[in-house]
Amino acid sequence: MQKLVNTIREAIELSGLKSGMTVSFHHHLRNGDYVLNMVMEEIANLGIRDLTVNASSIFAIHAPLVDHIKNHVVTMLQTDYMSGPVAKAISEGIMENPVQFRTHGGRPADIARGETPVDVAFIAAPSSDPMGNCSGKFGKSACGSLGYAMPDAMYAKKVVVITDNLVAYPLPDWSISEDYVDYVVAVDAIGDANGIVSGTTKITRDPVGLVMAKTAAKMIKASGLLQNGFSFQTGAGGASLATAKFLKEIMLKEGIRGSFGLGGITGYLVEMLEAGCFEKLMDVQCFDLDAVRSIREDPRHEEISAIHYASPRAKSAVVDSLDVVILGATEIDTNFNVNVHTDSNGYIMGGSGGHSDAAAGAKMSVIIAPMIRARLPIVTDRVNCISTPGKDIDVLVTQGGIAVNPARVDLKERFLAAKLPVVDIEELKARTEAITGKPQPIAKGSRVVAEVISRDGELLDRIYNVPTL
Amino acid sequence: MQKLVNTIREAIELSGLKSGMTVSFHHHLRNGDYVLNMVMEEIANLGIRDLTVNASSIFAIHAPLVDHIKNHVVTMLQTDYMSGPVAKAISEGIMENPVQFRTHGGRPADIARGETPVDVAFIAAPSSDPMGNCSGKFGKSACGSLGYAMPDAMYAKKVVVITDNLVAYPLPDWSISEDYVDYVVAVDAIGDANGIVSGTTKITRDPVGLVMAKTAAKMIKASGLLQNGFSFQTGAGGASLATAKFLKEIMLKEGIRGSFGLGGITGYLVEMLEAGCFEKLMDVQCFDLDAVRSIREDPRHEEISAIHYASPRAKSAVVDSLDVVILGATEIDTNFNVNVHTDSNGYIMGGSGGHSDAAAGAKMSVIIAPMIRARLPIVTDRVNCISTPGKDIDVLVTQGGIAVNPARVDLKERFLAAKLPVVDIEELKARTEAITGKPQPIAKGSRVVAEVISRDGELLDRIYNVPTL
Repeated sequence: MQKLVNTIREAIELSGLKSGMTVSFHHHLRNGDYVLNMVMEEIANLGIRDLTVNASSIFAIHAPLVDHIKNHVVTMLQTDYMSGPVAKAISEGIMENPVQFRTHGGRPADIARGETPVDVAFIAAPSSDPMGNCSGKFGKSACGSLGYAMPDAMYAKKVVVITDNLVAYPLPDWSISEDYVDYVVAVDAIGDANGIVSGTTKITRDPVGLVMAKTAAKMIKASGLLQNGFSFQTGAGGASLATAKFLKEIMLKEGIRGSFGLGGITGYLVEMLEAGCFEKLMDVQCFDLDAVRSIREDPRHEEISAIHYASPRAKSAVVDSLDVVILGATEIDTNFNVNVHTDSNGYIMGGSGGHSDAAAGAKMSVIIAPMIRARLPIVTDRVNCISTPGKDIDVLVTQGGIAVNPARVDLKERFLAAKLPVVDIEELKARTEAITGKPQPIAKGSRVVAEVISRDGELLDRIYNVPTL
Repeated sequence: MQKLVNTIREAIELSGLKSGMTVSFHHHLRNGDYVLNMVMEEIANLGIRDLTVNASSIFAIHAPLVDHIKNHVVTMLQTDYMSGPVAKAISEGIMENPVQFRTHGGRPADIARGETPVDVAFIAAPSSDPMGNCSGKFGKSACGSLGYAMPDAMYAKKVVVITDNLVAYPLPDWSISEDYVDYVVAVDAIGDANGIVSGTTKITRDPVGLVMAKTAAKMIKASGLLQNGFSFQTGAGGASLATAKFLKEIMLKEGIRGSFGLGGITGYLVEMLEAGCFEKLMDVQCFDLDAVRSIREDPRHEEISAIHYASPRAKSAVVDSLDVVILGATEIDTNFNVNVHTDSNGYIMGGSGGHSDAAAGAKMSVIIAPMIRARLPIVTDRVNCISTPGKDIDVLVTQGGIAVNPARVDLKERFLAAKLPVVDIEELKARTEAITGKPQPIAKGSRVVAEVISRDGELLDRIYNVPTL
């Protein structure tokens, strides 16, 4: 049995890929990923057209996709997050079919149940053996966890592993096993180390961010959830990381031993593990070099698949056992609906990623955001795009106070008892608008450029094109 | 989400199990397993009948199955290996439908492709958390690998984990993750530690066994396969283990560093790992306490699923990369077909397990067996049951010489060049019969009591009832 082939082109040909099929990619190499571009270039050269690309996220480095869309090599895009030139071009309406946005849990759920079947999955693997046992933990392009690639490997009809570190059989400590892999290609480089992971994700120094983070940490303490066995997820934004820092101080001072930290993992959660704040880290994606080192060396830091992380159709996922998650927002409305898809001009600049999944699973989901961003109020009457429905958001923390979802009177009472600055969300909105003025609605075109599909598979919202001159 | 239920009965009821469905079990607790019996007793008490039981192996401890068969609670049995009272009763014809024997690779392949779908899988787990992340490495009933249970967990409609060591969420170093598990039941004991694993599997002291083992080790050296990167599997029989011992001596003396040891793992392979003979052990099942300790503590000793081990329908399996396997036989015929299913009286006393899978995958598959067993010659004109087809067997080692499959002239030449005692298999048979006399054919009944299905899904042979007085 010979799986090792010489070129990406040969692997594509052997995979049987034809016009009209679906290819998939994962995003652990983030803005350093060469694989999506290398594969799509060969596909275009082979004259294959009308493809669906299912990529767990799209970054600035994937700009060549814009031409593939213009040339009808790609006619459908499914993703959980999109930024950079592709997001801009989609926003301006270059693609006929609307992009389908899912969540990091909804994507593998829909792949697994055959809603979005994948014909050929391309796995960017920092190490692989010739039979396709592969891992993200070792090699010059090490990215740590390969959690988002696992469902693609398990359910795609054909699986191609592309690596820049081919090792002898059997690779130790594999993330994806050979029984799923059809072909293996060795290339010079699968990515640019500088783009794959940042050195260390930086905590905020912004005084407003620090105020919010301190409030958030006190609020977690007041919630009653901060006990032995506590579990925690945080995004990689500056204020979210600062919250982790203050939370760590409280946990160490009070001798609280949590059970696990979850998510995209940063060096801050690694520090908390190493300081004894948690027993385990459950890692679907590493955000920085400290996280990559930790998942390679520390057996308490475990890799999980995207299904195990967050699938709403799994028999359970780790998010279902989560106590607290700290998340960001570009907007939040008075019904607590959150937008993380579009910016203040209506351009796509992100996506749910695991936002909706963690919010739905956690016992307390916290949005941390300043009252004013880009001179606009964070709280609106109706967000321009519902990324995560308000029913799954419990609290908004701003520098002007904490707004609690009316469905959570229990939390509101606890925060008031702890003398935390609780504020009604309508009042917060009014106070902010007193400074910024009532914002003008953004100009929307009439074409739907993206559909936001909830983690349960329902249409949550539509994103319209941004009119251009 | 509440998965933890109070009793096995409650889990069965919640699983929706009905008459006519299929339940599955795995055999890592071997002859110490309480779980199959506990579950089947509750099923019988609930009045559920006409079940298919798909159990990766059946041991003496599972004697209560005989009554469940007589009472038509169980009307179909699918397994890879069977010994003890159930095997005896089946041989004597208590069951209307023939037992379906598969291999350890064919069983998960047929579960995965829906040929033998499982409605409810029962997983005996030496440790589990309340969400069903579970492992065989820890706990009073530790059995090491849970490799045979993994496909059941992945493909069964409902999955029930039964544990006697319920730990806090999340269990470290899980073998099966919660996303596959519906219900968790904590019981006092899932098994009898004495039956689960032997202290340490014993090497043979029989002089004939030692002669054969020495010959086998020399033959492996002469095969040309014993180089850096060498990979090896051996059964747990005394002569097979003795071969491992002599092989280890050769490897250490000559400084040969192998890549991996495979299979059901014994302390002898652990010793070889620790001595530097191999880089890794790939473990689908632990045979003794040394193996259990090693898989728990040594990261070079890795757990693999039955699919990764041996599935003929996986995109590749570890057996496909295997150099040499040492296997046993109750009979072998002049076409090199091997019987490991029935004894000299025609009674079922075993099954292929991984025999056929390793034989098919390995570059050289070696049968080691004495010329005479139970006063009968080992070599016959036609085995009473074809367990592994002769096309997959390369060499027979006996104390009277080495018989090489005519398809492997390359090996024969190498052995002759190394002055090893090569003998024609017909001559070996004649020489043995000169001592034992021509054996009488065994008495066979007219009812088919079992069908032997090859790893590729073809009917290989039928086993007939043993006539009783």
